[in-house]
Amino acid sequence: MSSRTVNIGLLGLGTIGSGVVRLLRTRADLILRRTGLALQLARVADRDPSRAREVGVEAQCFTTDCFEVLRDPEIHVVVELIGGQEPAGSFLFEAIRNGKHVVTANKEVVSKRWEELHREAASHGVCLNFSASAGGAVPIVSAVRDRLVADRVEEILGVLNGTTNFVLTRMSEHGDSMAKAVATAQDRGYAEADPSQDLAGKDTARKLAILAQSAFHVSVEPDAIFTEGIGSIQRCDLSAAEAFGYVVKLLAVAKAAAEGPELRVHPALIPRDHPLASARNEENAVYLRSEAVGESMLLGKGAGSLPTATAVLADVADAALRRPPRASQSETDGREPLDIGKAMTRAYLRFTVADRAGAIGRITTVLGEQGINISSVHASLYEDCAGWGHVELITQTAPESKLRAAFETAKTLDGVGAPASLIRIEGESGKPRWVTESCAPGKRFEAVVDSPSGNAAVKNRAEVSVAG
Amino acid sequence: MSSRTVNIGLLGLGTIGSGVVRLLRTRADLILRRTGLALQLARVADRDPSRAREVGVEAQCFTTDCFEVLRDPEIHVVVELIGGQEPAGSFLFEAIRNGKHVVTANKEVVSKRWEELHREAASHGVCLNFSASAGGAVPIVSAVRDRLVADRVEEILGVLNGTTNFVLTRMSEHGDSMAKAVATAQDRGYAEADPSQDLAGKDTARKLAILAQSAFHVSVEPDAIFTEGIGSIQRCDLSAAEAFGYVVKLLAVAKAAAEGPELRVHPALIPRDHPLASARNEENAVYLRSEAVGESMLLGKGAGSLPTATAVLADVADAALRRPPRASQSETDGREPLDIGKAMTRAYLRFTVADRAGAIGRITTVLGEQGINISSVHASLYEDCAGWGHVELITQTAPESKLRAAFETAKTLDGVGAPASLIRIEGESGKPRWVTESCAPGKRFEAVVDSPSGNAAVKNRAEVSVAG
Repeated sequence: MSSRTVNIGLLGLGTIGSGVVRLLRTRADLILRRTGLALQLARVADRDPSRAREVGVEAQCFTTDCFEVLRDPEIHVVVELIGGQEPAGSFLFEAIRNGKHVVTANKEVVSKRWEELHREAASHGVCLNFSASAGGAVPIVSAVRDRLVADRVEEILGVLNGTTNFVLTRMSEHGDSMAKAVATAQDRGYAEADPSQDLAGKDTARKLAILAQSAFHVSVEPDAIFTEGIGSIQRCDLSAAEAFGYVVKLLAVAKAAAEGPELRVHPALIPRDHPLASARNEENAVYLRSEAVGESMLLGKGAGSLPTATAVLADVADAALRRPPRASQSETDGREPLDIGKAMTRAYLRFTVADRAGAIGRITTVLGEQGINISSVHASLYEDCAGWGHVELITQTAPESKLRAAFETAKTLDGVGAPASLIRIEGESGKPRWVTESCAPGKRFEAVVDSPSGNAAVKNRAEVSVAG
Repeated sequence: MSSRTVNIGLLGLGTIGSGVVRLLRTRADLILRRTGLALQLARVADRDPSRAREVGVEAQCFTTDCFEVLRDPEIHVVVELIGGQEPAGSFLFEAIRNGKHVVTANKEVVSKRWEELHREAASHGVCLNFSASAGGAVPIVSAVRDRLVADRVEEILGVLNGTTNFVLTRMSEHGDSMAKAVATAQDRGYAEADPSQDLAGKDTARKLAILAQSAFHVSVEPDAIFTEGIGSIQRCDLSAAEAFGYVVKLLAVAKAAAEGPELRVHPALIPRDHPLASARNEENAVYLRSEAVGESMLLGKGAGSLPTATAVLADVADAALRRPPRASQSETDGREPLDIGKAMTRAYLRFTVADRAGAIGRITTVLGEQGINISSVHASLYEDCAGWGHVELITQTAPESKLRAAFETAKTLDGVGAPASLIRIEGESGKPRWVTESCAPGKRFEAVVDSPSGNAAVKNRAEVSVAG
């Protein structure tokens, strides 16, 4: 069989980079048999020579100077696995200008310098592949770019951060506190020593920017995406969500709209039978709704040395097999993402209330004044805090701005105290998965209220009056 | 922007073919902007000229003679959407020999003539793309071929037939009989007028052959795959499965083994929290376990005019953008699939029993004699058949041959009558999702038995003795 040699220049021997070295060592024959490509690790650069020895990179192909790799005329594909804005960004542009195909897992550079990178790659006739920058081994970038090339994406819901998904799963399934769940994630290698970027949703926002730019051809500044982390999620919110039939995920949301896509990152309740709910622990998953194909979902490992390295090598083979674009096909169309205040959302709200009659009535009255209908109310007493309880509500869909105004007002009501939560609900568009009864102000509706015995299986039905 | 014209020759204007015509009409601009490819529907052939008029194909590019398309020197890509062995198979080979890239959704030809097709395509330097032949719009073929090019697949579990998945979902969620569920599927366009190939698992077996040949590089004769359909599934099996924490799917199973892969198609219980369980109604889904990436899953529409046409157009763009292979990379390695008798499986068994003491003991004794341990037993009386009840068991993992021998023996026991069911359990490898207590012969164990009141929420615990 005739084969074609592909010389790889690798920048960075961290978690993913060392995974690439290991995989290439054991899988080069397999890749040759499958594709006819003989992938060669020709040059490797890292600041730290000891890493090269640890991973077993031969001394003659190692350097501490990335430019030696970038300027080596023998190199066909530069694989950038350094991460961070700089110097990684400059290295990527240098590689492209030197006529090399580029494969990267760098979500910072790809999300922020999208147009510039694509323009440069097209004008130099090289491939720019970045599958591992969003979703890791989940083939979401190639699904959007290649498999849906004839389709229009209408909605993306993504669980794109393994750390937060692991933490929320532990809190929900094991009853762990957030601190304990984070510590467990660190123990198992699913969270960094400083997990703050992950917990605050910053990592998810960058990946969302990449997916949104791939799918919608808009220009997105990741730092401008509305982003809420999981820091304020309490265990009681997770159990209340479960009682209402939902699970909580840190969600990347992108919805197509004529004016420009709606983009946001925040914790969200999704129906328990939604396909995304099956993404547990460190898993990532992306749910897509597109015009012709309808609903689809991809689930898998979003991080980790070998899973991400597998995505990188698939990108290398793709770069070697695909004809590079002759012109930039990723130019944005000038639209801007929508302001979140214009979004329509429904939400789960939790308020801490004094154990006196009328709290539910006062809260629901405030919601009614903003025109927000309610589909479900649940109230129970705190076990460990006598005289206080909590009220949880599921609203109907309403403008985000009104929802937030009502939430802020209700928090200041007499008999209502901190803490309070607002968690949006997603994953119900497309199919109605949740049948509710709405309650207009002035009407009476039934709420399910836990019995004082604390036996969750025995519920009392209570009538709640909502003033008009 | 510079563009490249790709002339498409389309064979067949059925459901998928007319979807391709419609999509091309509305999406050609989008594809051009995204890829630089100007896809042109240059020639269309179908036996029936009235179809061309219905879909709005221009008269001057239509013909009833497929060879006019196959021999047209202007055509770059032939899209074969006729289906069936012949004449479609001959048309595919003719297209390849005429130097045209080939895109097909033909599961019969691709599954049965795998090696021959790949060899011809490689020797003529053309691409052979068949994404739509297995999984429809679910990008499973490209995931295995491209995204896992550096990985080794260890296990494939697929829900690959929309008709049977719809029927099982309706039976399980709506309590429909199979006849009623099939009629509903036909009403909604999810089942053909004659759904027997689908219900018998034949369609699934062909798709499994395609996935297995893609992933394992073995030669597979689809008709030789052990195939059981859903014909004997009863509603009571679905509710028993649910009570044990499972859902029932018609599953395509492929597991790597040194000697050759284990391949089979049969109804299977999978844990309710398994990602595949979220494939409901007509959806398809494929769960993969691979060495480096670990677990992943793809879910979406496995059929339908526009979803499948989207997969076909993605294959057309891929054929135009990818360098064709220089030699056949899909040669099989001479291994043969394993005989199912050598498989290790665990199963759900249901027996109809007379309402007399000792039935559970006699059945479990027979199982014990074959060395089969039991992890769960459940017994209840038939509501509509006085004096008879059913016993359901979940076994531990055992050789398929022993399981079947024990099942056949137990059916002939005194007080045990027809009907009886054996449904294998899958989806528990990788992670232990089901914690059981085993029961060796001669020991005593507890079984959960429904109370005669019929209130499923109130269970009585019964001790069952298993003779050694």
